[in-house]
Amino acid sequence: MILFDIAATEIFSNKQALIFDLLGETKVNKLSEQVEVANGGLVERRKFLKSGATFLSVLAASSASSAAQTDVFDDHPKHMKIPGVASELYGEPSKYESHVKRLPEHVYGSSIITAAFTPIDQLNGIITPAGLHFVVHHNGIPDIEPSDHEFKIHGLVHKPLKWSVESLLNYPMVSRVHFLECAGNSGPNVIADAPMDMTCGQIHGQISGSLWTGVPLKYLLDEVGIKPNGKWAMCEGADSGNHVRNIPLQKLYDDAIIALYQNGERIRPDQGYPMRLFVPGYEGNMNVKWLHRMEISDIPSQSKDEQSLYADITADERVKQYSFNMEVKSVITKPSGKQQLPMSGFYEISGFAWSGRGKVQKVEVSADGGKTWALAHLEGPIMSKSLTRFTIPWRWNGQKAIILSRAMDEYGNTQPTRQEWVSRYARYSHGHNNSINAWLVSNNGRVSNFYV
Amino acid sequence: MILFDIAATEIFSNKQALIFDLLGETKVNKLSEQVEVANGGLVERRKFLKSGATFLSVLAASSASSAAQTDVFDDHPKHMKIPGVASELYGEPSKYESHVKRLPEHVYGSSIITAAFTPIDQLNGIITPAGLHFVVHHNGIPDIEPSDHEFKIHGLVHKPLKWSVESLLNYPMVSRVHFLECAGNSGPNVIADAPMDMTCGQIHGQISGSLWTGVPLKYLLDEVGIKPNGKWAMCEGADSGNHVRNIPLQKLYDDAIIALYQNGERIRPDQGYPMRLFVPGYEGNMNVKWLHRMEISDIPSQSKDEQSLYADITADERVKQYSFNMEVKSVITKPSGKQQLPMSGFYEISGFAWSGRGKVQKVEVSADGGKTWALAHLEGPIMSKSLTRFTIPWRWNGQKAIILSRAMDEYGNTQPTRQEWVSRYARYSHGHNNSINAWLVSNNGRVSNFYV
Repeated sequence: MILFDIAATEIFSNKQALIFDLLGETKVNKLSEQVEVANGGLVERRKFLKSGATFLSVLAASSASSAAQTDVFDDHPKHMKIPGVASELYGEPSKYESHVKRLPEHVYGSSIITAAFTPIDQLNGIITPAGLHFVVHHNGIPDIEPSDHEFKIHGLVHKPLKWSVESLLNYPMVSRVHFLECAGNSGPNVIADAPMDMTCGQIHGQISGSLWTGVPLKYLLDEVGIKPNGKWAMCEGADSGNHVRNIPLQKLYDDAIIALYQNGERIRPDQGYPMRLFVPGYEGNMNVKWLHRMEISDIPSQSKDEQSLYADITADERVKQYSFNMEVKSVITKPSGKQQLPMSGFYEISGFAWSGRGKVQKVEVSADGGKTWALAHLEGPIMSKSLTRFTIPWRWNGQKAIILSRAMDEYGNTQPTRQEWVSRYARYSHGHNNSINAWLVSNNGRVSNFYV
Repeated sequence: MILFDIAATEIFSNKQALIFDLLGETKVNKLSEQVEVANGGLVERRKFLKSGATFLSVLAASSASSAAQTDVFDDHPKHMKIPGVASELYGEPSKYESHVKRLPEHVYGSSIITAAFTPIDQLNGIITPAGLHFVVHHNGIPDIEPSDHEFKIHGLVHKPLKWSVESLLNYPMVSRVHFLECAGNSGPNVIADAPMDMTCGQIHGQISGSLWTGVPLKYLLDEVGIKPNGKWAMCEGADSGNHVRNIPLQKLYDDAIIALYQNGERIRPDQGYPMRLFVPGYEGNMNVKWLHRMEISDIPSQSKDEQSLYADITADERVKQYSFNMEVKSVITKPSGKQQLPMSGFYEISGFAWSGRGKVQKVEVSADGGKTWALAHLEGPIMSKSLTRFTIPWRWNGQKAIILSRAMDEYGNTQPTRQEWVSRYARYSHGHNNSINAWLVSNNGRVSNFYV
């Protein structure tokens, strides 16, 4: 005889009610349920999803067709008639997705790739595969054998110490989902006077999201004992570029970690193997990769990176250093630059927002160039200093449309317009551009970068 | 002149207070703060972490030594003196981590790998890299070109439909972090009368965690319109094994998705490219990979997989089918089988718990073979039907110790002991083993699998 467990019994008892609800709902005129919440076709989400049948069949019409019951068994594809291949011991993406890769950039005519962006318009969710995480470095990725690597803390401390990789792997660890963004992300949109026709990844792809796991710095700082005049940590990478940034000790006590794992596995060479500093919410280059030394000091050491590369020039020609936090920002990844909408009808506008200061409070979307705005749905869990996916349904009428998103974080910080942002900085200064981004959808469905 | 932004100013005002607190704390006798919460060295967490200096210096002693200020600059390793290499367009793990890979298993003497486990004892956090996600299949991984693939729903519906991959990629999507576990996970611990000396991954590695993104099934079911007598969906994979499972429609409406992305990128061939069914919390094989057809019916079709491979035999020799949910379970991943503790002292016991029915409510850990138990810390966000990482500090005294974990989910479900579990099932029936797991730490620090 056959046993059904309790779950199955519940299913049968609930099922009847469900079916009746479903059939009942299909009798309603779905179009009458769709309430516009802003101009240009932005639709109220709850009623919209309830009107699923009408909404989705519009989309499905582009490629779905009725299938006669009888032909279902006549069309088993060839791959069902031959044995498949074995599992790899470390799996790879499908060969049919080989176009999804980092977008390389050769800065200053360097012969090696000094930056590689994440193709965020090809991805979904809020986690970036480690293999596609954006990368920036200034003298290549070092080949570091763990037994060759030590991390030391010295300077204004009571007891200078150094740790092997193995010893840190035995420390207590925390895991948190955080974004990482380069200070120079979205630079093209403020450097170029006219919008360049690039993909979302090419413009905004110096942002990625990961689950970072490692040892809280506060444990190590307690261990060496900070002297009263210790206020800053000079953090040095073990790369031949000798990358150095100074971090206020307060931040290291608050939420900084020595990251040893990314997305579950040991951190990869291009992300700092065997270890990197991770300072959640701070500009990318402060998350020093291949970290091997912290010198505690009373004032920042004014490294080359702080005096030039990562300093911003303001409109009144002053040098702004130590910006620390990446400010609240959002970007629509779909539809986005160089994509093509196949036909007029219903689409889901999707993107993500983030803030280096905390949680995303809300994201608004406009489909009429910023005249009217509607609240987007935020997909949880909404985590501090993490990418937060937002979506909103959109009925595209086939005419020219300009779509924008703007985010607010839990402290009420918002995004400036491009004009507001540009007015604050000197020409060609392009760090920390968190201005509102826009895409133009032409009446032929082609999507392109746009300045409002 | 130099500007500091508001963040920097805040740091200086807070910093003084921090330093004084820190120095104040180091005057306290840390050992007096460590409160045992269970026998065998399990320590109360909050006081424990506050006593950081003492706790950590014990561990650091194993490999950390004082570094004179002067020698810091004398030892730049060789990799700092030569340029590094360029970024790859799709990055790879470090060559020094090449031992971290799936653990293959050749079932029934098959010439191809039919199962490959996740080395969960080598990983951390709650996300498994797609390349290390466990894999089970019965006739290899099919090579499916997206343009060769259609998904259809027919049977007891008002309007049979089929969708191309491209059309589904235009549908609204949701992203959720969920575990996936094979019904046969942890089988060795109930099949073998004596504990086999294997790693945690070899015994319990048919569990992985991912961010799954895809189209909610309810949209597609609304679109075809279910007839009143439609209660089940026969779900068929497009592999040559022609894997088939029957799922109650209620589940498909509740939280099932057509998964198109895993951890941000398109789902990989060994996980069902171009699409798989994902039914959160249900046994792995019900999450039909390479999904190409759903036939709505009034009763389940009793597929070969349901009649034999994935049916459990109870102690009174009856066949239990349609178990659906994977029950609440936990496993300690560190320390675990075949690992070696270098010395007595402080360690963090770390592992994860999960339940196919909802959220993990609590995890308790014992270090004395189950006589006394202490509450472990759960690392958030705690998500439904997701891996939840737990940790607890442990002072190992260098003597033989038996460590266990037991979890409870939000509905009060708990794990049975091994004896309780074995008494319910027929000999060699090993599906759905969620019994309490134990590790033996010998007085030489060697860790091995153990039956309590």
